[in-house]
Amino acid sequence: MNILVYGLGAIGITFATFLKERGNSVYGKVKDKNFPKNLFIDGIWGEHSAELDGISDNILDFKDIDLDLIILAVKSYDTEKALNDIKKILKPNSIVLLTQNGYGNYELAVKIIGKEHTLLGRVIFGAKVIDKGKVRITVNADDVRIGQPDNAIDKKIILDIVEKINKSGIPASYSPDVYKILWDKILYNCALNPLGAILECSYGELADNKNSRIIMNKIIEEIFLVAKLNNIQLNWDNAEEYIDFFYNKLVPPTRNHFPSMYYDIQTGKKTEIDALNGAIVKLAEKVGIKAPTNETIVNLIKFKEIRRDS
Amino acid sequence: MNILVYGLGAIGITFATFLKERGNSVYGKVKDKNFPKNLFIDGIWGEHSAELDGISDNILDFKDIDLDLIILAVKSYDTEKALNDIKKILKPNSIVLLTQNGYGNYELAVKIIGKEHTLLGRVIFGAKVIDKGKVRITVNADDVRIGQPDNAIDKKIILDIVEKINKSGIPASYSPDVYKILWDKILYNCALNPLGAILECSYGELADNKNSRIIMNKIIEEIFLVAKLNNIQLNWDNAEEYIDFFYNKLVPPTRNHFPSMYYDIQTGKKTEIDALNGAIVKLAEKVGIKAPTNETIVNLIKFKEIRRDS
Repeated sequence: MNILVYGLGAIGITFATFLKERGNSVYGKVKDKNFPKNLFIDGIWGEHSAELDGISDNILDFKDIDLDLIILAVKSYDTEKALNDIKKILKPNSIVLLTQNGYGNYELAVKIIGKEHTLLGRVIFGAKVIDKGKVRITVNADDVRIGQPDNAIDKKIILDIVEKINKSGIPASYSPDVYKILWDKILYNCALNPLGAILECSYGELADNKNSRIIMNKIIEEIFLVAKLNNIQLNWDNAEEYIDFFYNKLVPPTRNHFPSMYYDIQTGKKTEIDALNGAIVKLAEKVGIKAPTNETIVNLIKFKEIRRDS
Repeated sequence: MNILVYGLGAIGITFATFLKERGNSVYGKVKDKNFPKNLFIDGIWGEHSAELDGISDNILDFKDIDLDLIILAVKSYDTEKALNDIKKILKPNSIVLLTQNGYGNYELAVKIIGKEHTLLGRVIFGAKVIDKGKVRITVNADDVRIGQPDNAIDKKIILDIVEKINKSGIPASYSPDVYKILWDKILYNCALNPLGAILECSYGELADNKNSRIIMNKIIEEIFLVAKLNNIQLNWDNAEEYIDFFYNKLVPPTRNHFPSMYYDIQTGKKTEIDALNGAIVKLAEKVGIKAPTNETIVNLIKFKEIRRDS
């Protein structure tokens, strides 16, 4: 396969290294044209390295390559720009695999490149950049789940892509329910991520304290209402059911984690709040209701982002 | 006059020193029986000192004194306990002057000791304890306003108390509208105090940033709705009018201030959140509505309080 990885952060480097090592032709779209072609992985999946077939900061440098797969691995706030870039080089058979967090990436892709070109992935392994071009895999919670929410791509094509990723060494599986599964992650991240960044504490502290629990429960309840009114199917019948699972099953194994948004704020990076609680506020507006707890949380995070910027 | 000052914090010490220096008999109810009888003031009103006529941690030690005036100067979270103490020693002619922040102190006093014994004061000078028994007056925004919200005390008696306080050196004036004026301070404190403590910043930063402005506006709008439904008269016809005055007139002179709640959290002290935004949440529940922005703010502050405790 000819593969372009758009965005060489921790997730992009991981896909690029494994897929190249397995013999595919792999290219990288980067922001910085001096980014190294030689990539390295260590951590729980062992040591790996690969030299990419090409790297560029200019999307048009890839226009003559017959790309089978484009893996989109930028942060959610760069999705729209990336999709407009990709549109310029998309071939009739090119498939774009979205690997990002939050709500709105798939919806943008459907609008900009069309659902017949779009696969949705739910990535839930932990990877962090330890040096330029070097990534450490720290944890793997579940397979990368891959599917087409609107059944707009032949299942055989999806299975072929899933198999190639799987064989390269990244556990992946086909999932017709990927949209719901992605929402599970949105729920989890909306409840824990910004609050941990605001209160500067671990998931366990948030779950142990009655006041942060009240806030998280309200965030979750608002999401269930917003999802229902927007006809978004979740994996849970109601908020209470999810809240029970959340505290009893989801939080305990990650008690000591601090959210990525905490580190983003601490290091002055932009957060993915707009694709998480910010998306909930917009979905609420769309159906004429309020999501006041999510809205307050969004404004607190944005204050903290801007303050670090200045 | 025979005066008992209940609570010798910054405000209590200020009243006790000035009133004693002017020749009244002044006693102090304290938590710590080793608290000094000799009190000192410096700052914008000059240097003052006084030796109180008696100090005790036991309210019954004051039961044989024919107290004309009891100045209640504890934090709002201790008001109920203090009023129950005062009830034990109250004489038919004793007047209790409340000097505290927030909502609910007057309402408790009406219930516990009766409105015919209760004067409401709005204190807005700045005083801070610099050592045990020593206070510095840092700023005076306006006279201490004193009145009886339900006209339950003869105006002549109120004017007499106001004059004695005024003559002692603390600017004070009679105000039939003291309840509304106290609500002005509640509005101001609810908007700025907890948010400055959560985001660890000055009033000016909160007013300059569009996201913190959205939160403050929502806090204020919720208070106006809650007040209206509870038949509480405010000094402003609607939230927009107050918001305009708030940003243009109230915040600019105090731009560089950090809220007292910020220092409370930083030094591990309990805050007055229950008498501010917490009271709004309760008043909302009372009329069957929600005040979700105030509620989120309350829970964030309580998380931070508890975290410092542990």
